[in-house]
Amino acid sequence: HSPALAAALQHRLDHLTKPLGALGRIESLALRLGLILGGTAPRLDAPQLVVFAADHGLAARGVSAYPADVTWQMVENFLAGGAAVSVLARQHGLALTVVDCGVCHDFAPRPGLVVRKPARGTADALDAPAMTPEQCAAALANGAELLRGLPGNALLLGEMGIGNTSSAALLLARLAGHDIAACTGAGTGLDADGIARKTAVLRAVLERHAGATAPLAALAALGGLEIATMTGAVLQAAAERRVIVVDGFIACAAVLVAARLAPAVTQRCVFAHRSGERGHGLMLDALGAEPLLDLGLRLGEGSGAALAWPLLVSACALLDGMASFAQAGVATAG
Amino acid sequence: HSPALAAALQHRLDHLTKPLGALGRIESLALRLGLILGGTAPRLDAPQLVVFAADHGLAARGVSAYPADVTWQMVENFLAGGAAVSVLARQHGLALTVVDCGVCHDFAPRPGLVVRKPARGTADALDAPAMTPEQCAAALANGAELLRGLPGNALLLGEMGIGNTSSAALLLARLAGHDIAACTGAGTGLDADGIARKTAVLRAVLERHAGATAPLAALAALGGLEIATMTGAVLQAAAERRVIVVDGFIACAAVLVAARLAPAVTQRCVFAHRSGERGHGLMLDALGAEPLLDLGLRLGEGSGAALAWPLLVSACALLDGMASFAQAGVATAG
Repeated sequence: HSPALAAALQHRLDHLTKPLGALGRIESLALRLGLILGGTAPRLDAPQLVVFAADHGLAARGVSAYPADVTWQMVENFLAGGAAVSVLARQHGLALTVVDCGVCHDFAPRPGLVVRKPARGTADALDAPAMTPEQCAAALANGAELLRGLPGNALLLGEMGIGNTSSAALLLARLAGHDIAACTGAGTGLDADGIARKTAVLRAVLERHAGATAPLAALAALGGLEIATMTGAVLQAAAERRVIVVDGFIACAAVLVAARLAPAVTQRCVFAHRSGERGHGLMLDALGAEPLLDLGLRLGEGSGAALAWPLLVSACALLDGMASFAQAGVATAG
Repeated sequence: HSPALAAALQHRLDHLTKPLGALGRIESLALRLGLILGGTAPRLDAPQLVVFAADHGLAARGVSAYPADVTWQMVENFLAGGAAVSVLARQHGLALTVVDCGVCHDFAPRPGLVVRKPARGTADALDAPAMTPEQCAAALANGAELLRGLPGNALLLGEMGIGNTSSAALLLARLAGHDIAACTGAGTGLDADGIARKTAVLRAVLERHAGATAPLAALAALGGLEIATMTGAVLQAAAERRVIVVDGFIACAAVLVAARLAPAVTQRCVFAHRSGERGHGLMLDALGAEPLLDLGLRLGEGSGAALAWPLLVSACALLDGMASFAQAGVATAG
């Protein structure tokens, strides 16, 4: 980051017609957006909400409250416009793209759907690495290539994949060094017994892949084709200086892997919200993130990123549109 | 509230394509909006952001970091479009009206400005009641009359008045029974010594008006022509079943007075945010309020209400626009 630009942004913020710092977190958000986009009047352009979808072999172990078919059914729902993220994307003028990163289903081609699947779902991580190194590398490359083809300067992360809170919990436990019990939550709605069973399965998966400690090895072993594709997209978006709006627990897991590969990635991120999923607090801590919203969301899809989006628009609008004390003829403090 | 409508709203929420409760606080917000507006597909119509402005005699006692002239200068800034609330109102399509409830200044008439002033500022509450009973009654009536003339079904509360965190702190201390030190904060930016001096002044004001314990007596004695006018508007908006979007510390003080007069008022309210002003937490507790945002805002003007507004729009859009599991052909849990 440029210290000169940071100083210029802070000077601008401090001279707008409001008490110093009175816009709170919106001011630090404006500062961050200015630093990412490289100017004192940053403009968000053609925001892209991308939903990364894939299936998980581990879902067969009963780690989710929902059957695995819900992954492809929800992809259809996204494309038909009936999901939460569809509604929110319409509200905020976000272009919505759904990427089949590895769903166990053949979708009819249609606008808004991109198919980039190295495999039809991951392997059951209790038996084998979720992805081969080649599949994992392909997913990362797919994410980067996809991103290069998207317009605009902002990426909002969404995901869908029955079983994917398991992969996210595994990656958090492995990459941040937490016990799996602290990382494992209800996902789509497990009860206490279900969470206990899920935790036991995940603990066994970690033991099965005890050697997978490097970021890419962990990603391949513990999975998520959608998480790997998202990780590739995050790395590319950061390199292109796009604003990355991070949704909940699973999107954070992709950012965690990306940040272990390229720590500066988190400087390009705006963390949308603190979710209701157990483990998300530890995940945010591992990323040094202070999210904008805290609404008990635990849906994924990019819904939290979309709900936070207008705050980013506000931050830019205030930076650009407010009068200074001098311009408005308003007296200053003291 | 209608139990049948509440049940119908909950049924609708529970059958949308998401895990039960996965939209967290957005679901309780949708429920509240449905109950206020009286249907399972509530629509927000022609939202009105009203900034109530007035001056405070107590400002002469040095209770603010800014000179009193900033009140009228900021009114000019609101009308010229350069204030934070001006920018946010434009972003979200909120009609912005500024009401001169008692500013020590004569404004040239112009669109968006309404003049309803029982007095040019309040009296110094250390010497006398801030308002006479007649002035206070006139302000309340002005607020109600103003509201009756506004279109739409949603009111966003804003305010401007150098010295008005003092009035809000006094009302909180008196009506909720807290020590004034716990209610008194930095306002526009006092340092620790400034807060100590402000607290001492406010403690003396409370002693001076020890008998003013009933809500209207407290309102008149402890002041705020803008707070009184806002209280009248809140009572009228609640009676008309409008959604009332409550901004920060000062707007909450008006709602507190209104709720002491008509407790059902809070059922019509959506509390926008937890502000950075000391005392706001106690104020929210006194109102039984759970605000949507927590961004360290301490600007007033209605800026927090405007920042929270898109969440209300989202809640309605999700309730209306999401598919049910049956409509989308998505399998349910278990």
